[in-house]
Amino acid sequence: MARWEPGAPERLQQAALELFATRGYDQTTAREIAESVGLTERTFFRHFSDKREVLFHGQDVFVQAFLAGVGAASPGATPIEIIAAALQSAASFFPDERRSHSRTRQAVIDKNPALQERELHKFANLAATLADALRRRGVEPLAATLAAQTGTSVFAIAFAQWIGKGERRSLNEITADVLGELRTLTAKGRARSR
Amino acid sequence: MARWEPGAPERLQQAALELFATRGYDQTTAREIAESVGLTERTFFRHFSDKREVLFHGQDVFVQAFLAGVGAASPGATPIEIIAAALQSAASFFPDERRSHSRTRQAVIDKNPALQERELHKFANLAATLADALRRRGVEPLAATLAAQTGTSVFAIAFAQWIGKGERRSLNEITADVLGELRTLTAKGRARSR
Repeated sequence: MARWEPGAPERLQQAALELFATRGYDQTTAREIAESVGLTERTFFRHFSDKREVLFHGQDVFVQAFLAGVGAASPGATPIEIIAAALQSAASFFPDERRSHSRTRQAVIDKNPALQERELHKFANLAATLADALRRRGVEPLAATLAAQTGTSVFAIAFAQWIGKGERRSLNEITADVLGELRTLTAKGRARSR
Repeated sequence: MARWEPGAPERLQQAALELFATRGYDQTTAREIAESVGLTERTFFRHFSDKREVLFHGQDVFVQAFLAGVGAASPGATPIEIIAAALQSAASFFPDERRSHSRTRQAVIDKNPALQERELHKFANLAATLADALRRRGVEPLAATLAAQTGTSVFAIAFAQWIGKGERRSLNEITADVLGELRTLTAKGRARSR
């Protein structure tokens, strides 16, 4: 058995991000990532199936943050109120100290189509999990799917703003603003079309 | 120069779909697709870069159908009204005669993660193109992105219903229903939270 490495996943993740950002994703190997923090390639593969997974480590915790919000919403909450609670809970997963890390990660992803597809997959998975959680709360299937998809879009849009150049608002503030804008948008359409 | 093959892309597409559905996507080669309709592998690669592209042929026309709807919306239309027009235009791209083809295609995609990622990419591309078209109409950036993302989700959800087992409604009817449900959902949230 190999020795237990304290904090190895976090150290590998941090090192990978730095190498991807400075040297390029395609130009960095798992071995180089591991060696840059004094670990072996073998240790790397004990924690990650491949170098792509380093960028998506912690996805379970990310999804759990949304689900915690769904669970915390009051029993009589409407689907959109449940989603608002999920978004608020998820935002707490991204405090301002994490913004710089998230910016670097996004810059790496934006340069690589395969990583972009993986990121889309992550959001699709989030939407499916949220829809399932809403249905288990008794929300009707169509409303559950729509609310989950919409909530995921709101999160993705808010997140992109949060890591935008010069942005200072918290993710929670931005998410609330984007959700408010969605309500205004759909309400306007409704009023006009009647 | 090779002879011009009348309707070769359509024949290859139809043949590919049948082989993918009966034999499996991974078990079918470009050569087999071509030969099953009396064409050569070379002809196949004149029309498609790889066998995956057979399933995504016509994406430009698909996106253009949405853009035509954006262009046809009245000058004073709200963002959500423009999206409704885009969805209506896109629905006309999928008449009932096409439902069976779309069902088979989806069954092939559902069995293959790489094809699912390509499909997600298609929708992400649609949302980006729609947001751009809305901005060019003078819609404010956040509203444009939100309306485009939401419209794309509405389309994807409606499309999944349209190809559902036993579904008889037209895509246009379903799309209008899903958009109506979205308005109800967000309006409810709005009323309650005030």
